Amino acid sequence: MRIWTFDTTLRDGTQGEAVSFSVEDKLLITQKLDELGIDYIEGGWPMSNPKDKEFFLKARELKLKHAKLTAFGATRFARNPVEKDSNVLALLEAETPVISIFGKTWDIHATRVLGISLEENLTLIADTVRFLKDHGREVVYDAEHFFDGYQANADYALSTLEAAKEAGADVLCLCDTNGGTLTHRLAEIVSIVRERFDGILGIHCHNDCDLAVANTMAAVDQGVTHVQGCMNGYGERCGNANLSSVIANLEAKLGHSTIGPEKLTSLTSVAHYIAELANLPVPAGQPFVGRSAFAHKGGVHVSAVLKDSITYEHIRPSVVGNRQRVLLSDLSGRGNILYKLQQYGIGDRLKDDAKRELLDRMKTMEYLGYELEAAEGTFELLVREALQPGMHFFEVVSFEVGTRMIGSRPSETTATIILRINEAIHSATASGEGPMNALDLCLRQCISATYPAIASVRLTDYKVRVISTEKGTASKVRVLVEWSDHRRSWATVGVSDNVLEASWNALVDAIRLELMRLADKDESIEKAVEDYCWGV
Amino acid sequence: MRIWTFDTTLRDGTQGEAVSFSVEDKLLITQKLDELGIDYIEGGWPMSNPKDKEFFLKARELKLKHAKLTAFGATRFARNPVEKDSNVLALLEAETPVISIFGKTWDIHATRVLGISLEENLTLIADTVRFLKDHGREVVYDAEHFFDGYQANADYALSTLEAAKEAGADVLCLCDTNGGTLTHRLAEIVSIVRERFDGILGIHCHNDCDLAVANTMAAVDQGVTHVQGCMNGYGERCGNANLSSVIANLEAKLGHSTIGPEKLTSLTSVAHYIAELANLPVPAGQPFVGRSAFAHKGGVHVSAVLKDSITYEHIRPSVVGNRQRVLLSDLSGRGNILYKLQQYGIGDRLKDDAKRELLDRMKTMEYLGYELEAAEGTFELLVREALQPGMHFFEVVSFEVGTRMIGSRPSETTATIILRINEAIHSATASGEGPMNALDLCLRQCISATYPAIASVRLTDYKVRVISTEKGTASKVRVLVEWSDHRRSWATVGVSDNVLEASWNALVDAIRLELMRLADKDESIEKAVEDYCWGV
Repeated sequence: MRIWTFDTTLRDGTQGEAVSFSVEDKLLITQKLDELGIDYIEGGWPMSNPKDKEFFLKARELKLKHAKLTAFGATRFARNPVEKDSNVLALLEAETPVISIFGKTWDIHATRVLGISLEENLTLIADTVRFLKDHGREVVYDAEHFFDGYQANADYALSTLEAAKEAGADVLCLCDTNGGTLTHRLAEIVSIVRERFDGILGIHCHNDCDLAVANTMAAVDQGVTHVQGCMNGYGERCGNANLSSVIANLEAKLGHSTIGPEKLTSLTSVAHYIAELANLPVPAGQPFVGRSAFAHKGGVHVSAVLKDSITYEHIRPSVVGNRQRVLLSDLSGRGNILYKLQQYGIGDRLKDDAKRELLDRMKTMEYLGYELEAAEGTFELLVREALQPGMHFFEVVSFEVGTRMIGSRPSETTATIILRINEAIHSATASGEGPMNALDLCLRQCISATYPAIASVRLTDYKVRVISTEKGTASKVRVLVEWSDHRRSWATVGVSDNVLEASWNALVDAIRLELMRLADKDESIEKAVEDYCWGV
Repeated sequence: MRIWTFDTTLRDGTQGEAVSFSVEDKLLITQKLDELGIDYIEGGWPMSNPKDKEFFLKARELKLKHAKLTAFGATRFARNPVEKDSNVLALLEAETPVISIFGKTWDIHATRVLGISLEENLTLIADTVRFLKDHGREVVYDAEHFFDGYQANADYALSTLEAAKEAGADVLCLCDTNGGTLTHRLAEIVSIVRERFDGILGIHCHNDCDLAVANTMAAVDQGVTHVQGCMNGYGERCGNANLSSVIANLEAKLGHSTIGPEKLTSLTSVAHYIAELANLPVPAGQPFVGRSAFAHKGGVHVSAVLKDSITYEHIRPSVVGNRQRVLLSDLSGRGNILYKLQQYGIGDRLKDDAKRELLDRMKTMEYLGYELEAAEGTFELLVREALQPGMHFFEVVSFEVGTRMIGSRPSETTATIILRINEAIHSATASGEGPMNALDLCLRQCISATYPAIASVRLTDYKVRVISTEKGTASKVRVLVEWSDHRRSWATVGVSDNVLEASWNALVDAIRLELMRLADKDESIEKAVEDYCWGV
């Protein structure tokens, strides 16, 4: 059956405690979700804060291929006529094809929270839905607290749906707002609603009882065809139904049609992409998309999986774009790179002493605080330096960077670097927005004439962590930088007690790696390292 | 109904990729689970590693009040008579009152993995169970892959249970080893088994479809009275059913009797205690026990919760030993901002316009990319600036910091700052290990004479992340710094396109906050903010 997917990562998702997206993040995520084949993308609540207002303004420039952008808001305030209600008008100003509005289902919410009569609440719902329909919008009506409301006062709960339906709502979405409804009870109530109402029913579950995905699946069993959730299960309190799990279950386990099997293979990468922007790690054990989702550690499991992976895997990892991993001990882990190089037919290119030196350098760097498995770029550079000895491309003679701030004026940063390229000295001085930018500009000025290809390399993420803090502001830091050349992305690491030196090293390594790759186009090196870092 | 709880954190839990416990950890966790009122504690697999062997040896010293310690192992090897099978003998040597053994249910596992006939597998199961019963043990028979096995060959799957049952197994535990069974299907199969077998049935679910807790609950609906799981949902791949969620649902939502309502109030602390020993954070959004499980961020939610917490809480947090928190963020309504101040009796010290200005400043800062809820120090400074207007202590005239690196020698960093303190100009120059350290040294040189108290403030953590990356190395960054003065710790945030400027702002705010605190010792301000941001 066709099930419509509604993603609220950008609205309910941002109500999760640690979740915060910039306007730029939101635009990137919208495009990513559109590429994934999501049907509805709820972008935010234009009334609630300037960030969401700006998002909808900028989102008009986006060319979405498939998804319908959706603005979220509440039914009109009791004191305002609908055409003068600033919340409702802000929804129209968002200029989205779809609007989702929530109304009160639970009697105590109308009387105690809004302080209005039950009858009045029905009018708010009907007025708002009709007004938005009259302005040509597709309207998703979110029946807030539907299940609690139904259990408190079934007739009234149903009458709120009736009001929205008669006013022309296109979807009646049943919300388990507090996440407290158990699966069997939720299924019973959905089936009653299904008998009463034709048209599209939706479900919106929260995970307070650890049942959000199961409840969403149970609702679909009962005839719901519109499922709401958040990628990675972000959202208020314990989060919303994890939409990546819901999609995988509906598509890969039940054969329903959502984003389609082809796009399903990018589920893992999209989930990780969004987590990166949220600066939250994807839990290793997250179903379907986590790094450990198909990782085998128990001895019995490992030996069986090597015989036939169906013995301990419920689906093929590739169906959701994930991969099988067989975990190795740290000890065998390091030596395993040689095995990988062998596997990819590169081993023979390494002399024994080069192999030994590679392992020694890895050991030293790990000891210094580099995390090579998290920095495939730096690690690939190590391997390539062993495979292609003596290729340096350029030598850093010196760099210097200074920042000065006077009064409350913005700071000014200038850098100067001196390089030696094939015995010739090159130097450059540049001002930048911060030291990393100034150094980057200098480096490119010095080498772009000799190596024009590096123009395509750009920074996509930058993270700094203190490794050990016993020295206060003098503590050692690890800088992790992610780069892209539009064909692929990679990360490099720098470690130093000086954040600028660590950043500089990560920058130089990233550029050097790109040059190494261009000098030896054998992609099996890259693949071997990727495999190693994934512990496949 | 009485439901028996079986915790396998120490066995299946340690098959999770990141989970590892020392023998000492395992002993501490065993005592903690016993205090929690868990019925069965599976301690490990004595055959599989020396650590587990040692654990069972030392565990004999433990005086457990309630729980039965359980040793885990496999049915005998085909080549050994049971009384000579080292795995089975190791189970007896563990000297536990209960032994859980797993046997093969799924025909391909017998034939392809073990390489024996289906008939022979039944003999292994019967021999092993009978032998352990003859030695006076309570035996939990884990039917591995029961649901996959049933769907592949129902008659054979049931015959393995028959073999275990006839040999005297006390519990027949149905395992969804691969975690691939959907809830409705699992319930159907359990009900069929329930009709065929009397006595105690158990359930052991994995979370590969994000359904482990729901599947466990569905099995209980069908008459299962023995539930297996791991605290915090640890375990192979995506983990086991989260036992803390299962217990909370059974006890608090369905009124079954497991550990009892009194011990349920220590569920949150036990979950965090075990996570501490695993050195894994409890996910903030973890149902029932997570820090965010009852944390309200959305403005609508907050204002309603302040009227009546039932409006957005499905149970009272205290039932599971957790607490309500009201969070700060760009989504928050006025209720968020003033709730705690009022609660701590500070609200009256703020004029209405000061309140409005505070809210406006917060919204602006959030919009610029500050994350105030993660930086209670910066927020406290905002509040204090509203409460104590016009206190600046010192004014930054200028700062300058430069790093220089020549060849492969370590970099050198020098900073100079000029401040105005009570109309007098102070300046200092210092070299440091990195720019942050050099600036810190200068700042302290300048102000320590006037404000000696700041000597005790030191950095304890430092994090940088890019907010939006569209500008590559010129992207805006957020710097989060954690500080301690040995009495308490707090975090400050700086945002800028220059990592040094952002770091400097976080540093200045941290010092200024300390001075503000010394100028107004009313700790209720600090408490209100701390309570607000951390729910302490």
